[in-house]
Amino acid sequence: MNWKKRNAKCGDFNILPQNYKTNNSPIILNGWVNNVRDMGGLIFIDLRDRYGIIQLVIEPENNSELAERAKLLKSEYVIWVEGNLRLRSNPNPKIPTGYVELLLENFGIINKSELPPFEIIDDLDTNEELKLRYRYLDLRRPTLQRNFIIRNKVYQILHKYFENNGFIEVETPVLMKSTPEGARDFLVPSRIHKGRFYALPQSPQIFKQILMISGFDKYIQIVKCFRDEDLRADRQPEFTQLDLEMSFIERDDILNLIEGLFVKIWKEILNIDIPTPFIKMTYEEAMTRFGSDKPDLRFGMEIINISEIIKNSEFKVFQDTLNNPNGIVALINVKNASTYSRKQLDNLTEYAKKYGAKGLAYIKFDKGEINSPIAKYLKNEEINSIKNAANAEDGDLILIISDKKYKALTILGALRLEMARQLGIMEKLKNIFSFHYVIDFPLFEYDENENRYVAMHHPFTSPKDEDLHFLDTDPAKANAKAYDLVVNGAELGGGSIRIHDTNVQSKMFQLLGLSDEDAEEKFGYLLKALKFGAPPHGGIALGIDRIVMTLAGTDNIRDVIAFPKTTSGMSLMDGSPSNVDDNQLKELGLALLKQNINSEENNEKNK
Amino acid sequence: MNWKKRNAKCGDFNILPQNYKTNNSPIILNGWVNNVRDMGGLIFIDLRDRYGIIQLVIEPENNSELAERAKLLKSEYVIWVEGNLRLRSNPNPKIPTGYVELLLENFGIINKSELPPFEIIDDLDTNEELKLRYRYLDLRRPTLQRNFIIRNKVYQILHKYFENNGFIEVETPVLMKSTPEGARDFLVPSRIHKGRFYALPQSPQIFKQILMISGFDKYIQIVKCFRDEDLRADRQPEFTQLDLEMSFIERDDILNLIEGLFVKIWKEILNIDIPTPFIKMTYEEAMTRFGSDKPDLRFGMEIINISEIIKNSEFKVFQDTLNNPNGIVALINVKNASTYSRKQLDNLTEYAKKYGAKGLAYIKFDKGEINSPIAKYLKNEEINSIKNAANAEDGDLILIISDKKYKALTILGALRLEMARQLGIMEKLKNIFSFHYVIDFPLFEYDENENRYVAMHHPFTSPKDEDLHFLDTDPAKANAKAYDLVVNGAELGGGSIRIHDTNVQSKMFQLLGLSDEDAEEKFGYLLKALKFGAPPHGGIALGIDRIVMTLAGTDNIRDVIAFPKTTSGMSLMDGSPSNVDDNQLKELGLALLKQNINSEENNEKNK
Repeated sequence: MNWKKRNAKCGDFNILPQNYKTNNSPIILNGWVNNVRDMGGLIFIDLRDRYGIIQLVIEPENNSELAERAKLLKSEYVIWVEGNLRLRSNPNPKIPTGYVELLLENFGIINKSELPPFEIIDDLDTNEELKLRYRYLDLRRPTLQRNFIIRNKVYQILHKYFENNGFIEVETPVLMKSTPEGARDFLVPSRIHKGRFYALPQSPQIFKQILMISGFDKYIQIVKCFRDEDLRADRQPEFTQLDLEMSFIERDDILNLIEGLFVKIWKEILNIDIPTPFIKMTYEEAMTRFGSDKPDLRFGMEIINISEIIKNSEFKVFQDTLNNPNGIVALINVKNASTYSRKQLDNLTEYAKKYGAKGLAYIKFDKGEINSPIAKYLKNEEINSIKNAANAEDGDLILIISDKKYKALTILGALRLEMARQLGIMEKLKNIFSFHYVIDFPLFEYDENENRYVAMHHPFTSPKDEDLHFLDTDPAKANAKAYDLVVNGAELGGGSIRIHDTNVQSKMFQLLGLSDEDAEEKFGYLLKALKFGAPPHGGIALGIDRIVMTLAGTDNIRDVIAFPKTTSGMSLMDGSPSNVDDNQLKELGLALLKQNINSEENNEKNK
Repeated sequence: MNWKKRNAKCGDFNILPQNYKTNNSPIILNGWVNNVRDMGGLIFIDLRDRYGIIQLVIEPENNSELAERAKLLKSEYVIWVEGNLRLRSNPNPKIPTGYVELLLENFGIINKSELPPFEIIDDLDTNEELKLRYRYLDLRRPTLQRNFIIRNKVYQILHKYFENNGFIEVETPVLMKSTPEGARDFLVPSRIHKGRFYALPQSPQIFKQILMISGFDKYIQIVKCFRDEDLRADRQPEFTQLDLEMSFIERDDILNLIEGLFVKIWKEILNIDIPTPFIKMTYEEAMTRFGSDKPDLRFGMEIINISEIIKNSEFKVFQDTLNNPNGIVALINVKNASTYSRKQLDNLTEYAKKYGAKGLAYIKFDKGEINSPIAKYLKNEEINSIKNAANAEDGDLILIISDKKYKALTILGALRLEMARQLGIMEKLKNIFSFHYVIDFPLFEYDENENRYVAMHHPFTSPKDEDLHFLDTDPAKANAKAYDLVVNGAELGGGSIRIHDTNVQSKMFQLLGLSDEDAEEKFGYLLKALKFGAPPHGGIALGIDRIVMTLAGTDNIRDVIAFPKTTSGMSLMDGSPSNVDDNQLKELGLALLKQNINSEENNEKNK
């Protein structure tokens, strides 16, 4: 070994001057050269490891050989150093080890570094592609180091919390059966059974239910799940889920358990006491008041339904909407936004149209005046009634949507969030965490594209006991024993009490348009298992990536995944997915379709 | 909810009579009917949950309605029961709750069960295929429940141990780059990049090294790994690995850390104090004395090299072997096996031939006689020298192999284990655990099929410092900074100090026959990463499945994996791998080769 092994870490010297004691045993550190500053009289080196940064100092006057060798040092070199701790004459209170420094007696280069393609600092204006290609350098940045330390803390809190609550970790298979439903499965060709495929799990849903049927009572797993979707910025083809399931419980057993978990996580990691109990809001209330099934409750700007107030209005747009039994007219009142310009309002209209709005009506109450393109169609008392209903004052801006109920609510929900962002409300709230549950989701939603019901959560979700009869009469009216956990407008996860009756499960599959044959082919093993003494059970799945993002205060999922993919599913560091040789494919009984061999060649050419 | 939720678990009543106190608050339990015994005067029901089994009793005399309803109960029904605890008149000290019983006041059926295809008991003589098909019932067996509780304890001990030692859990990707080397990768077609593939990791080796280069210092992960091999009984296509890596350390830092871990696991789970420090035995010594790189040190029967003793023998077989510079003649002395019959010895010869033996010579020392087919070729003093060297006495059986050194040693190593099994030595030792490390493995082994060097561990393993020069002169002589952890003849895992110098790594690839282009194509990102300040680092990977098997005392890996595959990689419960529809394949830019469409049709027909 041509280097000296450390007897301490760079972060060990978080010492205030009053606590400093002289200690003559030499300290050996190993780490990376963060930077070197040659001040002529003194040479300063910042040495970095996972635990912190400490200042090293060489006094050329007293050790010219060392000073000479230090000239070879460059950023990101790996070195060992040996020296004695002393108080700094120029302390830097901004860093934890800022009151002390290590006066070097010796050092050596363990490994050199080429000049990194970007500096190892935060808030770096480097394009993300370059950072992903050199991910090992990007991961040295203090923020990313901190994020993965937070992520680790989350794991450790989870492990302990669920062990203390009597759960057992069980691993479910990664190579499982393909049951295309919802998102696309990633497929894995079988070599032994040529022409057949495994699928990577979108979730271990059925397996965890089977574990309940096996009597495991309380199951927990931190598990990778996979979706072959067209990726958005905040999605990854593989993501990590806290997956749990319990038997012989009711909904609130799970909700209380998870509440306790988040109290613990927020306290231990952020030292924040989050208020409990978490509000439980029905889906209907969340939609009606906030236009979202994951409402951000940190601020008001609630939706107000003015259908009743303007039901006799002669304004044709409102009339037409309200003639539809499903139509509503509703608004949000944006305080202090009457200064919005025509151009800003046009942009807002465009924004609303992205959510399907046909248009956006507004009323500005500006310095005693009413400024609105629809004012001329409304009677004065109608405008006053609207103003009263909206609790509007001078300086406010009212945004009005008239449309089918849930569509109008969803658009207003989106506008509410957008206005909160534009007015800086979100920025002010960023260190406030509002946790709550949304409950009583509809069991089904109607898929207009497929012209059939689809499960709003998944097909294993139990209807509410009192709604069971709707399955035979009016399925759309049935609510589910389903729940989501929401924080600040983001869904952290969701779950449900499951169906434990094989007949109810069969009926669900029928209602979802699965033939008996299809149900048997895809889910026959679950239907069968339910016949051998299935206990009542339910669970939840929470997104670990999203939890860590919330704790770390980042909107970029790539900040909390060590080796993320790009939005096109590439890993730029290792170049996957990559070509494989023909023999590998032949062994799997597969051939590439001609068309993509061509497109692949084009890819190569475009490189 | 049409059932009463439990306020206790079946295993809660581990009460000795002297500690029993009357308590009149009713106890509610939920669980499975293990069995019902109608004794006329009394009805006994054994109720089972994950926590235990307790006897329920109904007194028809006092509660005829309940007794009537109890007639409906069958095994594996899920029920709720309410009653009062009392001391049994006929205690059963064999089960933890055997001193008490619950006198029922009420009960209800939560869910029924069809008649299970096999009884839910251990030591069941049901064929494994049926058990795998109904895995949810198989998993209810007490032994399997216990195995997964052991497995969970292992996880929890690991989590805490490594947290306390400053490690951080980081997840590495499941969708990664295919680098065929050694076993086959499972491939995952990319839909977005048609014609390209991800691979499932055989190990996160390169990623954990990259994490060290990123400065994470101490990494831990419990991680699924995948190998598309032709399966043996003790292999599964997916298996779980404890994967760790550390920076700025030497070999013994890792060995000591892991030793501490196993001391803790064995103490907490089996309450056994395993002896420390673990012996460190070189590969050369392990091979020479025990004929195995994972020797079972719980018993002797060591290999004795008699080449020197019989070097002047006129026996042609020995002569021919020893004329080869690489040849040896060696033996094991099997105590008290002189009674072995000709047939038994013939079988042993067949056994040895499976390991490549050309034949097996033996000498029996039986009641003062020497019984050996080779005796006639040996001088009396030669036989005496052999007897002395072998420390043989009357009643012993000597087995002799003459062959190339490592081949002869390997065959004798296999015979040693086989004899220990046949003579019941293994059975007697089954509760003794002998942990040790095998160190100083050769860096390379020569692959006769491929006619080239292959890495004995993997290509990232560092040569020993003092052997570095052999890379340029005689690579076969170089030993590696590699180590395996062995218990009772089974390898629990292995690791090494890695190469942290990009030039040494490049040279390794060259020696392994990789062209510069291939090395760049496959491992270019690692070679590049090593250029940006790689710290000295090393790690280990341990097989969780094997650890749990050792703790649970089973030889069947399917006893410790919740949803295992068969030896042909099938999951009999869900039927994966399965056919997928053409559209799914077309989306991936793939087609099945004609030949397997046919064979697939045949498969279908054979169903």
